[in-house]
Amino acid sequence: MKHLEVCLTPALLPLYDLQGSIVVVIDIFRATSSISYGIDNGAAAIIPVASVEECLSYQGNGFLLGAERNGEVVNGFDFGNSPFSYTKEKVEGKTLVVTTTNGTHAINESKNADEIVIGSFLNLTAVCDYLVKQNKNVFLLCSGWKNKVNLEDTLFAGAVVHQLKEQFDTWCDSSVLAEDLFLCAKGNLHEYMKKTSHSERLKKLGIEKDVEFCLNIDVLHSLPVIKDGRIVKSE
Amino acid sequence: MKHLEVCLTPALLPLYDLQGSIVVVIDIFRATSSISYGIDNGAAAIIPVASVEECLSYQGNGFLLGAERNGEVVNGFDFGNSPFSYTKEKVEGKTLVVTTTNGTHAINESKNADEIVIGSFLNLTAVCDYLVKQNKNVFLLCSGWKNKVNLEDTLFAGAVVHQLKEQFDTWCDSSVLAEDLFLCAKGNLHEYMKKTSHSERLKKLGIEKDVEFCLNIDVLHSLPVIKDGRIVKSE
Repeated sequence: MKHLEVCLTPALLPLYDLQGSIVVVIDIFRATSSISYGIDNGAAAIIPVASVEECLSYQGNGFLLGAERNGEVVNGFDFGNSPFSYTKEKVEGKTLVVTTTNGTHAINESKNADEIVIGSFLNLTAVCDYLVKQNKNVFLLCSGWKNKVNLEDTLFAGAVVHQLKEQFDTWCDSSVLAEDLFLCAKGNLHEYMKKTSHSERLKKLGIEKDVEFCLNIDVLHSLPVIKDGRIVKSE
Repeated sequence: MKHLEVCLTPALLPLYDLQGSIVVVIDIFRATSSISYGIDNGAAAIIPVASVEECLSYQGNGFLLGAERNGEVVNGFDFGNSPFSYTKEKVEGKTLVVTTTNGTHAINESKNADEIVIGSFLNLTAVCDYLVKQNKNVFLLCSGWKNKVNLEDTLFAGAVVHQLKEQFDTWCDSSVLAEDLFLCAKGNLHEYMKKTSHSERLKKLGIEKDVEFCLNIDVLHSLPVIKDGRIVKSE
């Protein structure tokens, strides 16, 4: 039986051997939710880049450029990482180049993995079904907030553990912790998220609607995967 | 109001500014439980050292030497980190020098703090009462297992958060997570700990009795603190 482990922040990733494994990158508020939504809405590809400068270097070639730092759109960019910037009207057929505070960092840190896929509540079951089919060891990588552990990414990891615990060995303490946290919260994810000051921060940023959207489960049925450095829809 | 934050492993400690704060070092299985028991049983002092070699350098001067790696007593040492090696008969009036896989590492990593104290379920309320009295910011530092997050240290951190949430700001996501995990488990800590493979590992080492002992709450009423590199009883 393959194993499934949870890595609660990218800062802990050096402790894990990713070779031959699939990494699921998780940044619920909001990068991986928005990416999942954009890919489902027909974006041709999304290119994740580490820095604002690298993102800018793509300017003027028909790309849509998205840059977010500390929860806000960086000055001069088309959009940040609100899912409402990734609607069909805006992204269909386009190639996006994006950089975010936490999500694109986590993607970069996962480069030793055999495969990288993008996870969110929006496509939870699509992620789980794919993982079962691939039959490889799995690491659920929570992007966290500036390398600290956060609730929403841990909750999503717990949701995956809960759905896959019969098909994978899920013996690591972080998996147990994530699953039990998810079971605490699953009755009402929105209410649960209000427990943190992080939610106060999100409120100040005026992105409560984004947060609400990102906590919807299984409204999308496609899966974004990384191929040659570009995020595309899995076939 | 002072804040209380939880750091789930020493690997994340560089993300926190410890200046002016109290760090509570937590290594439930078994270093900080055994240290608390030894100090309560009248050990004059316990000197935590980082390496087996450093521990050996104290040999022949009337010290008791304890060394544990990977859960086992290191060859040639008086004892490892079983609490039953820290009874009154064995330690009263003695000075111990000890090194352990995780606990002494966490102590070393906390050196920038204003104060370091030792926490365990055995002296939970003594720890909490002290923290309220000192009125400084607090970091609960889980030692984890080789820098990975573990359940038992997180549960103890959650127990402290639960007891102190009216007296401190406990807004960090790790605190919320730890408290909710503790609330899941507190009905039966022993049963809860069986959920992990870590408990299988402990069983293989034949230390189930140690584990059971370390999960007793408030059987001790003293507090070990670090003064000039030595762990002594707080006055």
